[in-house]
Amino acid sequence: MHIWRVNLHTRELAIQPVPPAWERLGGRGLSARILLDEVAPTCDPLGASNKLVFAPGLLVGHMLSSCDRISIGAKSPLTGGIKEANAGGSTGLKLAHMGIKALILEGAPEGPGEWVLTLSMDGARFEPAGDLAGLGVYAAASKLLERYGPKVGIALIGPAGERLYHAAGIQNLDKDRTPSRIAARGGLGAVMGSKKLKAIVFDASGGAKPPLADPEAFRKAQKTYTQALMEHPQTQSYADFGTNAMPSLSNGLGGMPTRNLTAGQFEGVESINGERMRELLLARGGEAETTHACMQGCTIRCSNVYAGADGKTIVSPLEYETVGLMGSNLGIAELDAIARMNYVANDLGLDSIEVGAALGVAIAAGKMNFGEGDRGLELCEEIRQGTPLGAALGNGAAAAGRFLGVERVPVVKNQAMSAYDPRAIKGTGVTYATSPQGADHTAGLTIRAKVNHLDPTIQVELSRKTQINNAGYDTLGVCLFGAFGYATVPHTIKDLLAARYGWQVEEDILQVLGRETLQAERQFNLRAGLGAKDDRLPAWMKVEALPPLNSVFDVRDEELDRLFDWFTP
Amino acid sequence: MHIWRVNLHTRELAIQPVPPAWERLGGRGLSARILLDEVAPTCDPLGASNKLVFAPGLLVGHMLSSCDRISIGAKSPLTGGIKEANAGGSTGLKLAHMGIKALILEGAPEGPGEWVLTLSMDGARFEPAGDLAGLGVYAAASKLLERYGPKVGIALIGPAGERLYHAAGIQNLDKDRTPSRIAARGGLGAVMGSKKLKAIVFDASGGAKPPLADPEAFRKAQKTYTQALMEHPQTQSYADFGTNAMPSLSNGLGGMPTRNLTAGQFEGVESINGERMRELLLARGGEAETTHACMQGCTIRCSNVYAGADGKTIVSPLEYETVGLMGSNLGIAELDAIARMNYVANDLGLDSIEVGAALGVAIAAGKMNFGEGDRGLELCEEIRQGTPLGAALGNGAAAAGRFLGVERVPVVKNQAMSAYDPRAIKGTGVTYATSPQGADHTAGLTIRAKVNHLDPTIQVELSRKTQINNAGYDTLGVCLFGAFGYATVPHTIKDLLAARYGWQVEEDILQVLGRETLQAERQFNLRAGLGAKDDRLPAWMKVEALPPLNSVFDVRDEELDRLFDWFTP
Repeated sequence: MHIWRVNLHTRELAIQPVPPAWERLGGRGLSARILLDEVAPTCDPLGASNKLVFAPGLLVGHMLSSCDRISIGAKSPLTGGIKEANAGGSTGLKLAHMGIKALILEGAPEGPGEWVLTLSMDGARFEPAGDLAGLGVYAAASKLLERYGPKVGIALIGPAGERLYHAAGIQNLDKDRTPSRIAARGGLGAVMGSKKLKAIVFDASGGAKPPLADPEAFRKAQKTYTQALMEHPQTQSYADFGTNAMPSLSNGLGGMPTRNLTAGQFEGVESINGERMRELLLARGGEAETTHACMQGCTIRCSNVYAGADGKTIVSPLEYETVGLMGSNLGIAELDAIARMNYVANDLGLDSIEVGAALGVAIAAGKMNFGEGDRGLELCEEIRQGTPLGAALGNGAAAAGRFLGVERVPVVKNQAMSAYDPRAIKGTGVTYATSPQGADHTAGLTIRAKVNHLDPTIQVELSRKTQINNAGYDTLGVCLFGAFGYATVPHTIKDLLAARYGWQVEEDILQVLGRETLQAERQFNLRAGLGAKDDRLPAWMKVEALPPLNSVFDVRDEELDRLFDWFTP
Repeated sequence: MHIWRVNLHTRELAIQPVPPAWERLGGRGLSARILLDEVAPTCDPLGASNKLVFAPGLLVGHMLSSCDRISIGAKSPLTGGIKEANAGGSTGLKLAHMGIKALILEGAPEGPGEWVLTLSMDGARFEPAGDLAGLGVYAAASKLLERYGPKVGIALIGPAGERLYHAAGIQNLDKDRTPSRIAARGGLGAVMGSKKLKAIVFDASGGAKPPLADPEAFRKAQKTYTQALMEHPQTQSYADFGTNAMPSLSNGLGGMPTRNLTAGQFEGVESINGERMRELLLARGGEAETTHACMQGCTIRCSNVYAGADGKTIVSPLEYETVGLMGSNLGIAELDAIARMNYVANDLGLDSIEVGAALGVAIAAGKMNFGEGDRGLELCEEIRQGTPLGAALGNGAAAAGRFLGVERVPVVKNQAMSAYDPRAIKGTGVTYATSPQGADHTAGLTIRAKVNHLDPTIQVELSRKTQINNAGYDTLGVCLFGAFGYATVPHTIKDLLAARYGWQVEEDILQVLGRETLQAERQFNLRAGLGAKDDRLPAWMKVEALPPLNSVFDVRDEELDRLFDWFTP
C-alpha cells in the first residue's frame, strides 16, 4: 500500500511509501493522524492549506461484510475542528484495490474552472469539468459513468459543494452505481469544492485485492464474524426496515426529534416508520426489493430504495436520520414528502441532517409551517436556486439561525444534532457535546445500551466507551452495523488483522485504535482553539423541558470535561 | 451623557449611567473598551452574543469642523477580531444631542422579520421593517425619511447586511440626507443584519448640544483649530479634488493598486484622478458643486457628488479608495464606469474596497477582463441578485478567492487592503499587517510622511506612531483630515477637552488615548485567538516584485512583532 498525494496546484501525483507512524492506522484514525501531522489546525478550512484525505479502513479490500467503508477527512468549515465522515458504497474498495492506503489532496488550483481527477494504475489525469459544473450529483454521475465506463468508482460533489456551502458532503457511488452514499457531515463537500474538484474517478482496473498474510486464517475469521453477524437479530431488522427501524426505539424512549425539538414523541410516527415504509414498498413494487446492499458482499443490506405510488424510485436510500430530521422534526407525517426533500438534498450533495435541522429553524422563523411537505420541498429548491435564504439553509442549521435571527438552534460546534434528542437520550447528548466531530450520532450513539437513558450520572462513562469503540470501528472501515457481529465475537478483529497484515495485536485492539484516534482528533481541535467552552450543548437544552418525559439535559459540565481525562494533550 | 442599551431579544431599552472606567473614552476607544468588557472574544460574530456599539467620539456634538464622527464597533465576521469603522454624516451628532455616550445593541430577536428601531427622547420603539426588507439603502432611506421626517438621523443596512455578507457595512445619512457615509469595513452591516435591524432612526428632537464646562475657552480653542485647518494646504486640495487628490502621490510613489496589484502605476491614471474628475464635474454641471461637506460645520468639504454626462448624479461621494480598487485595480480608466459600480456597492450597503478587491480576484479567475467596466457592473449586479458567485463577491476578497480557487489574494486577517500597495508604501504595509483592524489604511496611512517609503528598517516606527495617532483621533471623533489642523496646533486637543469636560489632561492626550485604544483592541484579538501568525501580509507579497519599482515587502517578521512591544497583555 502507498500514500497517493495529489497537489491540486501543480496537478502532480506523488506515490510515496507509507511513513512508519502511519503504518498501523487506516480510515478515521489515519485521516486524523495525517491532518495532525500535516495541516495547521488554525488554517482556513476552505483555503489552500487544508488537505482532503480519503483513507479506506484497515479491513477494507476483501468484501468482508460491512467492512469496506471509506473515511474522508479534513479540517471542517462547519465546526472549525477536525472532521471525518465515512461512507459505504464502492469508493473504499476501489482505493484498496489500487493499493492506496490514503489519498491526500493538497493545495488548490489558481484560476477558474473545476476539474475531474481520474486516478488509475497509470497515475493521475486532470480534465476540465466544464460540462458538469452546476449539475446535481445524479446527472453528473450519469455523465461520468458514460464517459469512464460502468466499473469505476466515483466520489463527487453537487452544487452545494461547488458553492462551498458548509453543509455540503461528498457523494459516493453505491455498488449499483447510484451516487447516494454520502460522507455527509461537516462540510467536506465544500473542502472538495474549494479544491475545485467536481469529481474523483477511481479506475481500479489492473489493481487487485490487497495481499493477505495468512489467507486461510482470514477466511476462518471471516466466517466466524459473518456468521455472528447474520445470527444477530438486528441484522434481520435492518434487512426488513433499513435504518428506519429506529423509531420504535427512539420514539418509544421519547427522543425522536419532533416539531423542531419541542417534543420527543411524534403522533404521526406510524405513518413514517420502517414498518410503514416496508408495507408501502411491498405494495407499490419498485425498481429494487425493499432493501439492498450498498457495498459488495454486505450481508445486512440495510439500504432501501424508496418508490412512489407509481412504483418509480423517489430516492435511495431513505434513512432514519432523514426521516427524523425532515419528517417528525418538521411535523411531516408523509413518507413521500420526506423522500422528495431527501432527493433534492442528495442531488445538491447536502447533509440531510443539517438541511432538516435548518428547515426546523426556518419554521421557527415563520418561513414554513409544521407539516407542510410541499413548502419544505420549495425551500429545498431554494437551496438549489441559491437565493439568500437558500444559501443560509445550505450552510446548515447554525447559519440558518444566524440568517433568520433564531437563537434556539440544535447544534454543537455549529453542527446539527442527529435524530436523537439529547434530553431523552442523555448519553448521546454527552457524545454530541464532547465528540471532536461536533454533534454526531455516529461518534457514539448510546440508545441501544440497556440503561436508564435519563440518569445523568452514568452517561459520561457510557458515551466514552461508545465513542472509543466507534472511533475504532471507523478506523477499521467497519460499518457500525457490522459492529453487532464483532461485538459477539470480538476476537475476530485481532484475528482478521493478524491474517491480513501479520500483526500480533491484543484483543483490545479496537479500543486501542479508538483511543489513539480520539486523542489525535482532540489534539487537533485543541490546537485549533476549540476547548471546554465548545464541549457543551446549547444552553436552552438545560432549561427547556422535553415532553412527554419533561426532561432537560442535566449532565454536569464538570462531568463532560471528564470525558477526555484519560489522556493529557 | 448615558449608555443606551437596547436588548433586541426583549426589545427593551435601558438608559444607564456611564461606568467610571468608560467616562474618559469615546468613539473607537470606548467601543473597544465596551467590547472587551462585555463580549466573549471567542463568540460567533453573527450570533446573539456579539454586541454592536455606536459611540460618538469625545469631541462630537458641537459641529467642530470635521469632528462629529460616529464609531461603530463589534466583533468582526470578516476578521474574527475586534472591529471599529467610523463614518461622517449626521449619526454622531444625533447621538450626542440625545445625550448618548454609547448605544449598545445586544442579543438578537427570535422569529422572523426585520425591524426598524427608532430612538428618541421618549425612548425606543420597534416597528416591523417588512416593506423595507430587501431594498437598497437609497430606496429604504427615502421611505424612512418620508415616514419619520427630514430631521432624523438614520443608520441602515442594504441587502448585503440583511444577507449577512461579510463585506456589508452600515450606511449613515450625510447632512444632505444621502445614505452614503458608510462604516464600511469588517462586516459590521452583517452584525446589524444578524440582529435583524434594517435601520436605526435617531430622532434628536428635544435633545441639545452636550454641555460645555467652559464655553468661552471652547470657542477660543475651536477658532485656533479651525484657522489652522483652513490654512493647511491639504484642506484646499480636498475641497478641490476630494480624496481623489491622492493618485498624484500614490501613483507617483508606485503604489497605486493596478491590475490586481501586478503594478503600482496605472497608465490610465490621468483619466480617473481628482483633477480629471473636477474638470468633468465643472463641465457637466450637476446637482451639487464639485464638493460639499458630509457633516454640518465641516470646513474641508471633501465630499464630491459625481454627475454623469447628462449632469445627473451617478454616485456621491466617489472616493480615492474606490477609484483605486474599482478603477486602476481592475484596469478601468473611466470614471463613469467606476461611479456606476460604486453606486451599486453603496446601494447594497457594501464596502467598495472589499468589492473592488474581490473583482480583482474574479479577474484572476477569468470571470472578467481588465478594463471591462460593463462586466464589472454586471458582477456588482450579480451580488444584488445573490447568485453563488455574487454571494462570494459580497463576502469579500478572501471569500471570493476561496470560491474561485484563487490563492493570491490581497488581504490581511481576511480583510482587503486599501488602495496603497504595501510593497511600495511599506509603512502602510506594516499597518495592514499589525493593525488589530486587519488591512486598513485609516488605521495608519504613512504615505504623507517625508521618508523613503521603500526602506524596510524605518517603517515599524512610522506605522506605530501613525497607528497611535489615528486611534487617538478615532477616539475623539475627529476625521483624519481634521488631523491636519490639530497637527499644526496640537495643544488645542487638550484645550477642547478641558473646555468641554473640565478635564485637566496632558498635551500628549492624543497618544494616551491612542495607546489605550490599541491596547484594548489588541487584547481582544489575543483572546479571540489572533496572534503573530495573523500579523503578516500574504506570503506572495514577499516574493512577487511590484513594477515599476520592483520592490517586495521586506519588513522582517521580527520587526512586525515589535510593533506592540510597548505593552504587555
